Amino acid sequence: MLGFRNAPKDVADLYREIPKLMPRKLSLTAAAFGAACVAAIGVASATEVEPKLDDKVSLRKEMMHLTGASMGVMARIAKGEAEFDAGAVQGALRTMHAVSLGFADQFPEGSETAESEAGPKIWSDAAGFEAAVAKFIADTGAAVKLAPADAEGMKQAMGMVGANCKACHTDYRVKKD
Amino acid sequence: MLGFRNAPKDVADLYREIPKLMPRKLSLTAAAFGAACVAAIGVASATEVEPKLDDKVSLRKEMMHLTGASMGVMARIAKGEAEFDAGAVQGALRTMHAVSLGFADQFPEGSETAESEAGPKIWSDAAGFEAAVAKFIADTGAAVKLAPADAEGMKQAMGMVGANCKACHTDYRVKKD
Repeated sequence: MLGFRNAPKDVADLYREIPKLMPRKLSLTAAAFGAACVAAIGVASATEVEPKLDDKVSLRKEMMHLTGASMGVMARIAKGEAEFDAGAVQGALRTMHAVSLGFADQFPEGSETAESEAGPKIWSDAAGFEAAVAKFIADTGAAVKLAPADAEGMKQAMGMVGANCKACHTDYRVKKD
Repeated sequence: MLGFRNAPKDVADLYREIPKLMPRKLSLTAAAFGAACVAAIGVASATEVEPKLDDKVSLRKEMMHLTGASMGVMARIAKGEAEFDAGAVQGALRTMHAVSLGFADQFPEGSETAESEAGPKIWSDAAGFEAAVAKFIADTGAAVKLAPADAEGMKQAMGMVGANCKACHTDYRVKKD
């Protein structure tokens, strides 16, 4: 595989470089896309934990880890470091969609722990957070249905998904490292 | 892509044929693997729904749909209908792991609806169901870490994951079509 799991800094570098690689013809601007991807860097560098069913903090961290790994798969293709692979891209999109479906359940009252980057607005603005997750569900579902057949289609899907990274991390995340 | 989304019967056929393709040297017996895969057929043919955050039945159905689609990716490779693709396989395993993380939250009291195949034991034997989901989390996580590099490795991963299909469907599912 691509070694993402053990090389988060490398993937962070990829995220930063993606805006340069975006074709101008896409409706999503390179700047907006870049911001979304840079916002996702923290996902990629999230500490790896052993997910346990009775520890929702561990479950949501693993969900974000999988999301970051999936963005990394597409980032490498966008950068030209890996060949476009329709199966790998669809797997990445399905992974993010699967994450989206269960994500909202991983933030019960009292799970705002010191070692978590979950922001206080998740609880104080629960309706807003739920709306963000609902959009994540819809957009990742649409990206899966898009089923990109080439790198251009993949970049379109990345834009659809990446906008959610930025929006949600801006409002509902407090970076702690 | 492989057309799985619109061809569940085709994928069901693939599942039935996989036992013949399993190498004898694997510790998992072909019979056990076949039973697991046959049990997964219903997943593949689950009705497609639009997942909505306020409708947990729709979320769990979409989770099982993604799981079935991911098994389908690997089944086609196992059958020789598609080339081994490490990226596609890892994407499939990550998708199932992502599903596992949020699955237990999708069965609140009162969601035992007529159009759902969720069995009554999910609620009457909640501890057993949670143990099954905890195993699904551990086994899909191990399969992701295995990161199969060839078709043999993929079959090993399929065995690790497929055993969960069988176990959980036997006890906690009531097939309704």
